[in-house]
Amino acid sequence: MEEIDLLIGARWVIPVEPAATVLDDHSVAVSAGRIVAVLPTARAAERFLPREHLRLEKHALIPGLVNLHTHAAMTLMRGLADDLPLMTWLKDHVWPAESRHVSSEFVYDGTLLACAEMLRGGVTCFNEMYFFPEAAAKAALDSGMRAALGIIAFEFPTSYAADADDYIAKGLATRDAFKEEPLLSFCMAPHAPYTVSDKTFGKIVTIAEELDLPIHTHLHETRQEIEESLSQHKARPLARMSALGMLGPRLVAAHAVHVTDAEIEMLARHGASVAHCPSSNLKLASGLAPVARMLKAGINIGIGTDGAASNNRLDSFQEMRSAALLAKAVGDDPQAMPAHQALAAATLHGARALGLEASIGSIAPGKFADLCAVALEGPELLPCYDPVSHLVYAAGREHVSHVWVAGELRVEEGRLPGLDNRSLNNRALLWQNKLAAETK
Amino acid sequence: MEEIDLLIGARWVIPVEPAATVLDDHSVAVSAGRIVAVLPTARAAERFLPREHLRLEKHALIPGLVNLHTHAAMTLMRGLADDLPLMTWLKDHVWPAESRHVSSEFVYDGTLLACAEMLRGGVTCFNEMYFFPEAAAKAALDSGMRAALGIIAFEFPTSYAADADDYIAKGLATRDAFKEEPLLSFCMAPHAPYTVSDKTFGKIVTIAEELDLPIHTHLHETRQEIEESLSQHKARPLARMSALGMLGPRLVAAHAVHVTDAEIEMLARHGASVAHCPSSNLKLASGLAPVARMLKAGINIGIGTDGAASNNRLDSFQEMRSAALLAKAVGDDPQAMPAHQALAAATLHGARALGLEASIGSIAPGKFADLCAVALEGPELLPCYDPVSHLVYAAGREHVSHVWVAGELRVEEGRLPGLDNRSLNNRALLWQNKLAAETK
Repeated sequence: MEEIDLLIGARWVIPVEPAATVLDDHSVAVSAGRIVAVLPTARAAERFLPREHLRLEKHALIPGLVNLHTHAAMTLMRGLADDLPLMTWLKDHVWPAESRHVSSEFVYDGTLLACAEMLRGGVTCFNEMYFFPEAAAKAALDSGMRAALGIIAFEFPTSYAADADDYIAKGLATRDAFKEEPLLSFCMAPHAPYTVSDKTFGKIVTIAEELDLPIHTHLHETRQEIEESLSQHKARPLARMSALGMLGPRLVAAHAVHVTDAEIEMLARHGASVAHCPSSNLKLASGLAPVARMLKAGINIGIGTDGAASNNRLDSFQEMRSAALLAKAVGDDPQAMPAHQALAAATLHGARALGLEASIGSIAPGKFADLCAVALEGPELLPCYDPVSHLVYAAGREHVSHVWVAGELRVEEGRLPGLDNRSLNNRALLWQNKLAAETK
Repeated sequence: MEEIDLLIGARWVIPVEPAATVLDDHSVAVSAGRIVAVLPTARAAERFLPREHLRLEKHALIPGLVNLHTHAAMTLMRGLADDLPLMTWLKDHVWPAESRHVSSEFVYDGTLLACAEMLRGGVTCFNEMYFFPEAAAKAALDSGMRAALGIIAFEFPTSYAADADDYIAKGLATRDAFKEEPLLSFCMAPHAPYTVSDKTFGKIVTIAEELDLPIHTHLHETRQEIEESLSQHKARPLARMSALGMLGPRLVAAHAVHVTDAEIEMLARHGASVAHCPSSNLKLASGLAPVARMLKAGINIGIGTDGAASNNRLDSFQEMRSAALLAKAVGDDPQAMPAHQALAAATLHGARALGLEASIGSIAPGKFADLCAVALEGPELLPCYDPVSHLVYAAGREHVSHVWVAGELRVEEGRLPGLDNRSLNNRALLWQNKLAAETK
């Protein structure tokens, strides 16, 4: 008998790898934060002596979800201003609020709130891009969540940094301070083609290669972005990025709403990933991303929530459902992005984009035990012919019962054992009062 | 002091009428199933002596949602077959299952399950179209839910009826049997232009006028429907319906995905309503309904879930969110269908389509107390700058805490006091076993 930390038996284990697999009545054995074995529950008791044994008889056990694009601290601006044109929203609401309030404390509090929301919704890893990444790093660690932190860059000054070099220097210093943390990884995160210069992009490509980091940026999100690039740079943003050496397997292109067939082909050929953000693309009227065509071309597509100010939820279950449904109507093909593919996008493909495919994103021996149990019960989930269909089309984050990150229990029936709920509430309300006071 | 049955104090009362109104710290007084008054909580205690007094300090109280298009009993086929082309889905899965299994018992059990799901999600009234409406009527009454039942018509025989006249005769007999029930109303429900003949549509228009009933039908759902109509009838379905006298304030056109500007204008001019079904339109790749254009033209738009076999949830919160988000991207306008308008579509505008505007759909004295309390708390709903934004963009049906239909408490913290949960589960599993056995 092998001694292990944790044995989780579930009605269904859906490992995502191999693709489209559902294992009935299987168990996952966990030791020292990693998955040791995936085997039939009937055989697990013969082989393992677990310190803790959980039996989830109505549950599907899936890999923790990977939120491939967010600005976590923007939870503090959730619903601050909706139903407005993008530029009004940014100029009259988001930017003024940011310039007055964004600080290390704001980012810590907002990110901690985001971690609480994401964990409760089965998200175990998020790809973050915002100011003060060291504060976001602390919030991720304090909540026990995995994060890929963006070494953000803009040309213009903010309360965080003075110019592009300053942003990059501060981001690299944050990486130096936190790079031994097993839950944290880093991405270069130039904000977007319209906020970052050629020179800065050039530096970022060099640093990314030297440090072997992904490059996370907004790309082809709106028509306006493309038009402005044509007028200013005489090239569409993707062509400009290509000339600057940005295209390759490191690239995580957030949004990619407006892409021609030739651009899809170019992204695919270079092995770039797309962070698809369906709710945000709809809410800001950015457009309808051609996901079916991108999938056919073989692009690696993960799923992101974007920030809570433009969604307004950090809910990867919602995004998974919206992605699967939208792909069909926009692609004029009811078979586009079937449920298994949507689940893979929200897990393994997100991990792949972050260069973390070897350690997370599926339930496989050797990977970290980043796991999410979903209780497939209640009238809204009856009957059940196919648990993967239910995970994508019928269930929601409210059905998440347990979440583990690297084998540590972070959610249990809606509760967050590692976080002080009252303090979380009070901090959110404090910021609400501050921000509401001046936007009236 | 006035004696009343129930006084509900809420942090916010959102009455929907007047439009875009949020009442802080208000109370709703209920007596004999109807709303007696809406007034500041500070004044309610001076005026009323309630038999029961509920204080909901973190909640928004809204009108119960109206699901304007569903086939409730199809819950029993939830997720039976996904990600398939419409005709494969229908011919190889849905129709064979229906022809073997649909019976009065199937419809009762499936509708009861649907009522449990809908009630828990804040839906208090549904517009139903399926076989054996008398079984659906019994299920609605047994769950204490309000329903508009379709007097369905097809030309072809099913286990329910032999031909169009037989469908109509059986539907009218059901109406005769149940028409005194205060929770029930009826619609003529010819299934669709491609399944009902001119002659039958003519009869239905006559009966609808005679009995003063709405007419609920699928209309312009898919391109194929329009092409087949052009080849068979030399007219688009809407033009054919117009010639048959179907156009008018009675008409509830489900889907209306493919409509030209001229058709939008025609629907608006005749005061017809549209039952917008965003998830179903996406999932079956039917298309993207031009909701922003329809709203601009002044069409009354309600929101429907469609059946659980093509959604796969009977979740009006989800549909409200999807409707609001899709309207923006499809209409290329971030201001299209703001949150208040989406909430009105899911409540008052649905009631209007069913001819029930005088009795339900808003929180107003004299109307039935069909109410839904939503707990705006938890990390995913913090901070809160605008409760209506949260209801549409951030909250979900899982935040519904209490639901009343005509003043009777039907949901309390997720529980359904009037229903036997174990029996509901067992019936659903029984049908699951029957249907799964033969679709393998």
